[in-house]
Parts: sequence; C-alpha cells; structure tokens
Amino acid sequence: MNKFNPAFIVRENIKKLSPYQAKEIPCKIKLDANESPFPVKLSDFISEVNIPLNRYPDPEALKLRKALAKKMKISYTNIMIGNGSDELIYYLILTFGGPVLYPIPTFAMYGIIAQSVGVKKFESKLDSDFDINEEEMINLIKTEKPRLIFISSPNNPTGNTFSTDKILKIIDTARKNPSIVVIDEAYQPFCSDRGFLPFLKDFDNLAILRTLSKIGLAGLRVGYLIGNENLLSEANKVRLPYNVDVLTQYIATAALSKFYAQIKNFITEIVKERIRLQKELSKIKGVTVFPSEANFILFKVKNSQNVYTKLIKSGILIRDMSSTIKNALRVTVGTKEENKEFLKVLNNILGG
Amino acid sequence: MNKFNPAFIVRENIKKLSPYQAKEIPCKIKLDANESPFPVKLSDFISEVNIPLNRYPDPEALKLRKALAKKMKISYTNIMIGNGSDELIYYLILTFGGPVLYPIPTFAMYGIIAQSVGVKKFESKLDSDFDINEEEMINLIKTEKPRLIFISSPNNPTGNTFSTDKILKIIDTARKNPSIVVIDEAYQPFCSDRGFLPFLKDFDNLAILRTLSKIGLAGLRVGYLIGNENLLSEANKVRLPYNVDVLTQYIATAALSKFYAQIKNFITEIVKERIRLQKELSKIKGVTVFPSEANFILFKVKNSQNVYTKLIKSGILIRDMSSTIKNALRVTVGTKEENKEFLKVLNNILGG
Repeated sequence: MNKFNPAFIVRENIKKLSPYQAKEIPCKIKLDANESPFPVKLSDFISEVNIPLNRYPDPEALKLRKALAKKMKISYTNIMIGNGSDELIYYLILTFGGPVLYPIPTFAMYGIIAQSVGVKKFESKLDSDFDINEEEMINLIKTEKPRLIFISSPNNPTGNTFSTDKILKIIDTARKNPSIVVIDEAYQPFCSDRGFLPFLKDFDNLAILRTLSKIGLAGLRVGYLIGNENLLSEANKVRLPYNVDVLTQYIATAALSKFYAQIKNFITEIVKERIRLQKELSKIKGVTVFPSEANFILFKVKNSQNVYTKLIKSGILIRDMSSTIKNALRVTVGTKEENKEFLKVLNNILGG
Repeated sequence: MNKFNPAFIVRENIKKLSPYQAKEIPCKIKLDANESPFPVKLSDFISEVNIPLNRYPDPEALKLRKALAKKMKISYTNIMIGNGSDELIYYLILTFGGPVLYPIPTFAMYGIIAQSVGVKKFESKLDSDFDINEEEMINLIKTEKPRLIFISSPNNPTGNTFSTDKILKIIDTARKNPSIVVIDEAYQPFCSDRGFLPFLKDFDNLAILRTLSKIGLAGLRVGYLIGNENLLSEANKVRLPYNVDVLTQYIATAALSKFYAQIKNFITEIVKERIRLQKELSKIKGVTVFPSEANFILFKVKNSQNVYTKLIKSGILIRDMSSTIKNALRVTVGTKEENKEFLKVLNNILGG
C-alpha cells in the first residue's frame, strides 16, 4: 500500500506557505512581541466571574461592541469583533478576495493570509524614509485592480506613521477602482495623530482595524474592524458565529469600563518611555535609531544577528528584523527597569 | 460621485452566502443549541486566575494539547486546537481545498465554510434510516475526487451514529483517491460507541474533530483536530498563531484535570435523561421520535412550525429543523426539571 501523504493534496497556494513563526524563546525580559509590559490580571478589575461557561457566547458580541462604540463615539453597528485582527484580515480577504496590495516592509500577516486564501498579492516598497511610495501604489491600484489594500499606520516594524495626504489620495483612487482600503491602526494609541476614524464618513471604501493587544490585553485576542454597515454585513457572511468566546467578551467589556483609566495611564507611560529609550539608544555608538510613534523602536547596528544572539544570552529577547531590513532590530518598549537593563546590556555588547 | 457598494466587489462565492443564523431568542428554558444544561462557572474549579493578560497566548497551546492527549492516550503532536471546531473546518478546507463531500442533513458549517472559501461541494442524502448511502458516497468519491469528506457521527441533527463498516469502507476508498475523511465526533461522548480514535493508526487519511462545547464548555470555544503529524503540519500553515486565547487555554486545561470527574457525571446524567426523554416523547400522541446517541433528540410532529412557536410562547426554545427535514424539531436534553417542563408543555400543545 502506498503511503498517503497529505502534503501531496494541499492546494497549490499552500505548498509554498510556511506557518507564521511564533516560537517561544525563554527569556527574563521579553521585548519582542509589542506587548504591554505591565501585567494585567483578571483580579485587577473583576472580583468574580459568574458567567456560565456551558452556554455559547453571544454571536453578536453586543455588549463588547457597544463598549467599544462608546469609546470611539460611533455606532456599534459599525464594529465587528475578531479573534484578534488576524481573524478579521482572514474574513476581509475571504470576502473580497484579491489581488491584495500593501506596502513593505509591514506586518507579515497580510501576505501570509493572502497566500493562505490563495489570492494574488502586490507589494510596494516603502521609500528611504519608510514612507509610502505614492506613485507606485496609485499605479498598482490602477493597473492591478486590487480588491483590498492594507496599510499599517503606525507601521510595523518601521514604527512611523505614513503621510495622511498620501493615504487619503490612495483611498480616493481606490474608491474609483473600486477597492477597499484597510488602515491597520494597531499602534494608533501610541501615536500623536488622531488616525483615520474622522475620515470614515467621507469614504465608504475605508475600513479601520484596531486591537486591544498592544494596549495591555494581548492574551484576550480582541481585534475589531470599523467600517460602514454594508461592508461589515458582507464580511459578516464568512464570520464564524461564535468567534469570540464568552470570557473574552465579558472581560474585555469590563476592562473598557473599570480598567480604562489604567489602560490610558499605561499608554502614557509607554509613550514617555519610548521617547526616553529613543534618546538613550541614539547616544549609543554604532546604533541608528528610526523615529517611532508606536510601542516599539526600530534600530540598526552592525552584525545585528550577533547582537540579537548576545542579547538573548543576557536574557533579553527582542525581534530580529534583519531578514526584511538589513541589520535591523526591533525592541518593544518595556517598563523603565526593563529598558534600562536592555540599554545597559546593549551598551556592553557594542563595547560602549 | 457614485455610491461605492462593497456588495458589488465581493467574491462570486460570497454573493449567494447568508451568514449562519445564531440569533438569540429570549427564553426561560433553552434547549436549542446542544449545550450542556449544567451551569459551569470559573469558580467551580479555579480559585484565582493569575495569568497575565498583557502577553500573547502560547501559540502552540502546549499545556492544553498535553492535557487532551493524556485523556485520549495519544501524543499531543497529534492534536491541533481551534477556536471551536468551526475554525478547524476553515483550516482544513483552506489547506486541502475542494471539492468537499458530506452526507445531508448534517451540521450546517461544512457547507457554509466550503462556500466561504469558494470550493465546490457535493452532498449525499442519507437513506430513510438516516444512515449513509454508501454506494452514492463511494461513487461520488471516485467520480468527483473530493479532497475532504466530512462525516458527523453521531450526526447532527438526526442524532444517530452511522454504520462503522460503511464509514470504514469510505475511508478506505478515500485513501486511494486520495482524500481525507474527517469524522466529526462532537457528540461522541454521549454515544455507546468508542468512535474512530482506534482506527487512526490504520488510516493516515483519517482525522477526527472533537470539542468541549457539548460537554459543558461551549462558552470557551475549544475544538480539536486529531490526526497524523503530516496532516496537522499542513493545516498548521494556515492556522493563526494566536488562535486560542490565554484564558481559554488556562481554563480548559484546568477543567480537564480538576473538573473532569464532574464533566463525566454530567455526561452520564444527560445520557440517562436522554433515554427517559426519548421514552416519554414516544408516548405522546402525534410524536415520532428518532433514535439518538447524542445530547439531543430529533422528532416529528404535524404542523411543527406551529408547535415550535407555541413552545417559544411558553418560554421553551428548541430548534426548528423543518427546513431540512419535513416537520422535524430538535430538542437538546436539558436538566430533569427542564425536560419535565418541556414534556408537559408539548403534551398540552398536542392536546394530550
């Protein structure tokens, strides 16, 4: 009997796909995943969880959507919740298909999920300031007719926000194409800019992705898509009815009321630390620091992989970005103590 | 400016798709969703949840996989966890594509997700005893070359298990095709049969879906796929890295140790009640009851929609199945008191 090999019958688009690497590397100080460094525990804002686990969660996630809507002063009908933004990217691509267009380097999941679904993707390189290449993007929209355009701003892993004017021109061009522009505002809370919420009423081909992952609740997996009701009702067709579990719904809703002031404080603290960390990093000889409006900082050093490995040996985990940007490393802003330790060790490694 | 309408640019396969209906209907006694009727609360087996919510969950869900593996006496490398079985059905179809083949009537999500992904589907009608039409299934495997075959056994909504011999012949034929047979054993814990775990070693094109949803933890969203490592490593390529949140991982793991005896008791109680409910239902004039090995019972009455509506007016919610099986209703086994009340009200409606 021949051996049956599942690899022989996977779809063509899956054959070349590698799973997203999210291996756990043991470390003392974890600055690799753009998480909040401040421990948030259930008991910080909930005394007793009394919801029955034997019942299915609310398929409409009404309370959580209403809590989010209130914060943003929009209607809950303009919000769809996902098991992280990742799941919403899946739903968008499953609904509207491809081609998918996005600037690079950026968040890896746009490309991975486009390939998982099996749609074509177009990538437009950022310019030397890590800003959008407007001309190329507009050309690609006109010639390749993408269905979806993903723009992460502030961008991961570069840390900068893109020019609002350029994005607005892209949205306007996309509208005539027609295609949908999804601004991924995962890092917007750390940015001085107001983001694209104010433009939602002007463009019905605009959608926005946000998340609770970067502001202290990564473990809960709550991403949300903001857009007009027509757009959401299409994407809702492919949404799994019970995609957000009952505890996530309950705890995220509670966090948005009882814990919101604390979340705000944490954000303020991280922005303050980011500015300090940026300044200190730029003082270290051999380090080139890039501007950041997010909760992480991109920087370059010679022999970055060597530096990365030495940091791990000292118990500090950051992200090696050298496969996408030469000699680049990305460090998440930690607590004051963590950042101090990171700077000290980095200084030692670079022979400061 | 023309109005932009997202409905114009959705993929062809999405145009005809309606979202899965999971609307909440207020009721006193909820017997519509095949949930466990026994309230399970966090505090039943966890005194304090001390895991930090600010960190991403373990992308490998190692502890939960090991806890499940131990119960089934298999290796954790043969288990993949999903945000409910629903998500795993998505991953299977995204990985292996279509056509997808399944007997009907059955769980609606196989068809909905096949359409979401945009693959062809073939449906084979069950015979008059609700068993598999073996000849037709085998013919469809040979002629239509499905990549995936989904078989829910015990089957939802009919309640019966299919003939093991028929399924084994299907797996064997599928192996030569080649295609993968996924036995959905969501309701296996309520069934006298051992299920298909013992056959895993004989067929490398066999995979099994199980879930914690029917045995008391529907709110947590834990489904799991059991299969050989080659098969899982392919499906793992399309899995979102953080698809199972940190609380779900923690609580499900704890439930499998500290709460497992109680879960077993609940299952025993439900099987006992199912047998009683079956007997009592068959005594009511005008009711035809079908055999069940699940935690629900399918039955027929004249004017089923009318009966369904009258039950709701008395505060009892069951599932109207008349759109798929003429005059059929499906009732989840509730607590003794709930079943008693249901029987009393049904008796009254039918003029007993």
